Amino acid sequence: MKVKVIVTLKNGVLDPQGKAIQQTLNGMNYCNIDKVRQGKYFDIEINEIDENKAKSQVEEMCKKLLANLVIEDYKII
Amino acid sequence: MKVKVIVTLKNGVLDPQGKAIQQTLNGMNYCNIDKVRQGKYFDIEINEIDENKAKSQVEEMCKKLLANLVIEDYKII
Repeated sequence: MKVKVIVTLKNGVLDPQGKAIQQTLNGMNYCNIDKVRQGKYFDIEINEIDENKAKSQVEEMCKKLLANLVIEDYKII
Repeated sequence: MKVKVIVTLKNGVLDPQGKAIQQTLNGMNYCNIDKVRQGKYFDIEINEIDENKAKSQVEEMCKKLLANLVIEDYKII
């Protein structure tokens, strides 16, 4: 099955890449863009039929590799 | 309001970063990981109350800046 993960910076952690995108959009005359935050997205194909097992394995992988829990949050969708 | 965008590589476009993550996971004894594809995620705060207007503006922004439509797809969620 496929499991999707979004990893985002925690609130309060500076995001210069998101800031650059926001400023670029403002410069392109999209003046109503107040904030942009960039994150990562993972599409994981896992050879496991049981949805709960797959998700708990992906959660473990997030903690160990995919996200840096000091500055990032993850969400399995 | 907040609009969320996921930008992923089109099928068939090589994703060395995803491949590296997959191999690392396999090396960490997660042997049932068949494929990993990495994408980008954007959290956009837009000063617009009408949801449809906001989404159509974000779609325009995806086409112009956030995604490279030759190799990437975008999804507004």
